[in-house]
Amino acid sequence: MPHQNIQRKILRTICPDAKGLIAKITNICYKHELNIVQNNEFVDHLTGRFFMRTELEGIFNDATLLADLDGALPQGSVRELHSAGRRRIVVLVTKEAHCLGDLLMKSAYGGLDVEIAAVIGNHATLQTLVERFDIPFCLVSHEGLTREQHDQKMIEQIDQYQPDYVVLAKYMRVLTPAFVQHYPNQVINIHHSFLPAFIGARPYHQAYERGVKIIGATAHYVNDSLDEGPIIMQDVIHVDHTYSAEDMMRAGRDVEKNVLSRALYRVLAQRVFVYGNRTVIL
Amino acid sequence: MPHQNIQRKILRTICPDAKGLIAKITNICYKHELNIVQNNEFVDHLTGRFFMRTELEGIFNDATLLADLDGALPQGSVRELHSAGRRRIVVLVTKEAHCLGDLLMKSAYGGLDVEIAAVIGNHATLQTLVERFDIPFCLVSHEGLTREQHDQKMIEQIDQYQPDYVVLAKYMRVLTPAFVQHYPNQVINIHHSFLPAFIGARPYHQAYERGVKIIGATAHYVNDSLDEGPIIMQDVIHVDHTYSAEDMMRAGRDVEKNVLSRALYRVLAQRVFVYGNRTVIL
Amino acid sequence: MPHQNIQRKILRTICPDAKGLIAKITNICYKHELNIVQNNEFVDHLTGRFFMRTELEGIFNDATLLADLDGALPQGSVRELHSAGRRRIVVLVTKEAHCLGDLLMKSAYGGLDVEIAAVIGNHATLQTLVERFDIPFCLVSHEGLTREQHDQKMIEQIDQYQPDYVVLAKYMRVLTPAFVQHYPNQVINIHHSFLPAFIGARPYHQAYERGVKIIGATAHYVNDSLDEGPIIMQDVIHVDHTYSAEDMMRAGRDVEKNVLSRALYRVLAQRVFVYGNRTVIL
Amino acid sequence: MPHQNIQRKILRTICPDAKGLIAKITNICYKHELNIVQNNEFVDHLTGRFFMRTELEGIFNDATLLADLDGALPQGSVRELHSAGRRRIVVLVTKEAHCLGDLLMKSAYGGLDVEIAAVIGNHATLQTLVERFDIPFCLVSHEGLTREQHDQKMIEQIDQYQPDYVVLAKYMRVLTPAFVQHYPNQVINIHHSFLPAFIGARPYHQAYERGVKIIGATAHYVNDSLDEGPIIMQDVIHVDHTYSAEDMMRAGRDVEKNVLSRALYRVLAQRVFVYGNRTVIL
Repeated sequence: MPHQNIQRKILRTICPDAKGLIAKITNICYKHELNIVQNNEFVDHLTGRFFMRTELEGIFNDATLLADLDGALPQGSVRELHSAGRRRIVVLVTKEAHCLGDLLMKSAYGGLDVEIAAVIGNHATLQTLVERFDIPFCLVSHEGLTREQHDQKMIEQIDQYQPDYVVLAKYMRVLTPAFVQHYPNQVINIHHSFLPAFIGARPYHQAYERGVKIIGATAHYVNDSLDEGPIIMQDVIHVDHTYSAEDMMRAGRDVEKNVLSRALYRVLAQRVFVYGNRTVIL
Repeated sequence: MPHQNIQRKILRTICPDAKGLIAKITNICYKHELNIVQNNEFVDHLTGRFFMRTELEGIFNDATLLADLDGALPQGSVRELHSAGRRRIVVLVTKEAHCLGDLLMKSAYGGLDVEIAAVIGNHATLQTLVERFDIPFCLVSHEGLTREQHDQKMIEQIDQYQPDYVVLAKYMRVLTPAFVQHYPNQVINIHHSFLPAFIGARPYHQAYERGVKIIGATAHYVNDSLDEGPIIMQDVIHVDHTYSAEDMMRAGRDVEKNVLSRALYRVLAQRVFVYGNRTVIL
Repeated sequence: MPHQNIQRKILRTICPDAKGLIAKITNICYKHELNIVQNNEFVDHLTGRFFMRTELEGIFNDATLLADLDGALPQGSVRELHSAGRRRIVVLVTKEAHCLGDLLMKSAYGGLDVEIAAVIGNHATLQTLVERFDIPFCLVSHEGLTREQHDQKMIEQIDQYQPDYVVLAKYMRVLTPAFVQHYPNQVINIHHSFLPAFIGARPYHQAYERGVKIIGATAHYVNDSLDEGPIIMQDVIHVDHTYSAEDMMRAGRDVEKNVLSRALYRVLAQRVFVYGNRTVIL
Repeated sequence: MPHQNIQRKILRTICPDAKGLIAKITNICYKHELNIVQNNEFVDHLTGRFFMRTELEGIFNDATLLADLDGALPQGSVRELHSAGRRRIVVLVTKEAHCLGDLLMKSAYGGLDVEIAAVIGNHATLQTLVERFDIPFCLVSHEGLTREQHDQKMIEQIDQYQPDYVVLAKYMRVLTPAFVQHYPNQVINIHHSFLPAFIGARPYHQAYERGVKIIGATAHYVNDSLDEGPIIMQDVIHVDHTYSAEDMMRAGRDVEKNVLSRALYRVLAQRVFVYGNRTVIL
């Protein structure tokens, strides 16, 4: 019988590994009479780092809970308390529709617990599609602008919507460091290759040239280096000699949209932890 | 430099296996000065049956080409000459949007060379989605009708559009033999399980109960027996103990839509041959 | 700097879910000055059951540790403390070599931390292979024996070796309930199909008949019902119309041996929990 | 009713594409009263190259058959006539047992129609394993030799056995151009990564560092450039943050041996055609 003040929240802890961490954190939750719906943790023994995701249910007093945790955790700890539930994203696009279409469908008809606040394109190609789903489309053309100027205009548009994440759904421009730093660990990209193979432009043509028998896609956080951020999810499909570069591109689109959507599902559920150039998914 | 009368057509041959069949057929094409763009054949040695798909380019005289083939092929042969290019389908739905959405996206933005002439639902749930893509939606409710009456009304609606294929995109009703026989080898269904496991209703719940570690989907032609027609394509994903039946259902939706779309791609390209309860895909 | 009394052990807990379980168990470990190398837990909210696998390192006082746990855990709890390290198995075979060969290779050259104490066959076909690896082979022919008599002779042979697990590596006979009950949750089988499809004999021929586009294999615990025990692991490969039943069988063998070996790897690491007809793998 | 002179042979044709090629080749086979058991062809329209594999059964007059073909095919054609059946290989190894073990098992117990004439190692580590299968093991140590001298000694050993192919089953040395040119399109390697990612040494450690979520293996022909020859087959498995580099290595071994064995299966069946840096598999 859910009481009106009963909430579900997600506690995320990253800290240096130490004896008794699980006991300390779960004791505090127990003391606060919070029920642990789901708990997952991981210790990276190579770097001595502890990760824990705790899904809690009960009546929260955020301030005292966090203060109690701060008293118990070692120095250098990061702990975040997120409410569960729907997140808000802004999607950046260029001309290709498939990843955007999948996000629009899943936002509207189920599959991703997400509100698409707006779609921003540097071309107008996808405006009609977006408006079919009653979502605002903003054209921010890069014509006549430096990369820095364009990214600054994008930031201004995006920030109006205060999104939790910025999703690059085949946005085909390289972002400036200023843009990336403005959204730390908040920008998610789908790269149309199995990274780190075929970094850079026209990966399907590179794949065709190399005669590979598998093509793939990679969803990753964007950091300063192009195509080099922490990988969240990857998947592949088998191809053969009958595939032209165009056939690879067509077949690859399904992989791209699936990988992006599955990665986003885990990000939205607060399951993905970034450290260094790696992710832990709990 | 394409001449205005140059066309591309697909010749499909099924006949009893015999010595020299490839030579005979390709000789006739050669004599007609048709270029073989792509040729694939298969002999089922168990049943002594020969299958060939020949993609031809040139100036066609259909009547003499087919007459020449009839003169050369053994008795009991079937040969069909199809023009290459866009096909037309009618899609049947109930309430679930994911397969339909993928077809709408691919028809409108690339990925399937298909015109969706209309979508017919036995519920009105998906009307808005269909109309967003400027495609006619027809509600043919089953309320108060026998199965036979309802299917008869569906047939009347479908036949107005003269589709090449009828695609069941999560249409959750069993079809009558009369319906199936009205569209021989033209009705394609996506079944939400890895057939022949979990035939029947609520396959994800069955899968959960059984504790499987993999779930899948099956695209198949519909014949008289429920869930028993010739399989075109199947795919799976791995699941684990953390998946509830609902999680399986959500994850399974992506597999369903991918499998349906990949199966349809091959059907539209005239690559799928049905014989008995099996398919040959050339 | 490892002290000579420092050991690694695995604590496995299954109990009714309750508030504070993780805190209670990890507190006790902390009090015993045991380091948690790795901890994984899962709550099945449907049945209200809590599962936890805790890999501990330190100086163990087993008796007081277990007594402390018994004092803290709710009624109906099961907790087991296993030493980490090499396990011992007996392998049952009939005539097919591939799964056995993979186990022999991995036991001798790495990949599975397991000692194969003996191989028992109801045919002598594989005797040479086993002896090549300097492992005892026992022939226990079923000729002239009832199923009960034969299984009784098998039990006598097996029990001499006191194995942790009995692995059926393509042992092609149905076991009696008496045999299965003699080794509760200790008998692991590889079934040459994607269960629950194609239960019973000649699954590859069944798969061929049905015209499936995917074949698979299933590793599972054996319980009373044939082919019906809790599933540990499954995998599949794609096939097409060019595969005869024999081709499926040949291709399937690699899947079978991979799935058996991967399942066994997790069982040996004490990661697999059985409850009802399901497994939780932590 | 097989006549004693009835044989099965495989005709492989590579030539510039032209109208009527299939007709011409199959006509000649028909004229020779050879039955086409299986025929596969492919045209690479980008380079205008035609590939055909024709499995024939009948009474062969090789000289006149080839002469007839030479009269009909365009200039620059390559046609080869191979007897069907068991091939002979020499396997090169260093210290790792898993790929070798799989080849030994499949050669002895079914799965690959191949005779392992000898195994040559630059270390003695695997001598016992090879001798368990009654196959000669030759140690050709590289100690104190230049790369050229060592490869020359290897060639001398290998050539004694006149193998059809040389299989590198985790042979961890770079081969000299002289070695590679001595066995054109006859040297097959398994590379422990998903090429072209992680070229070079310690690919699993590179993969771990990059934080990938998938690891793979690649079977390819060896040409002059290290890790750069035509790819025959690739496969992957999913990994996650819990995998250390060593875990990736262990899990990767199963992929390596499966990919090598599946690639070799197609090579032995004369299904793999090399052109430029690509393969066509018919």
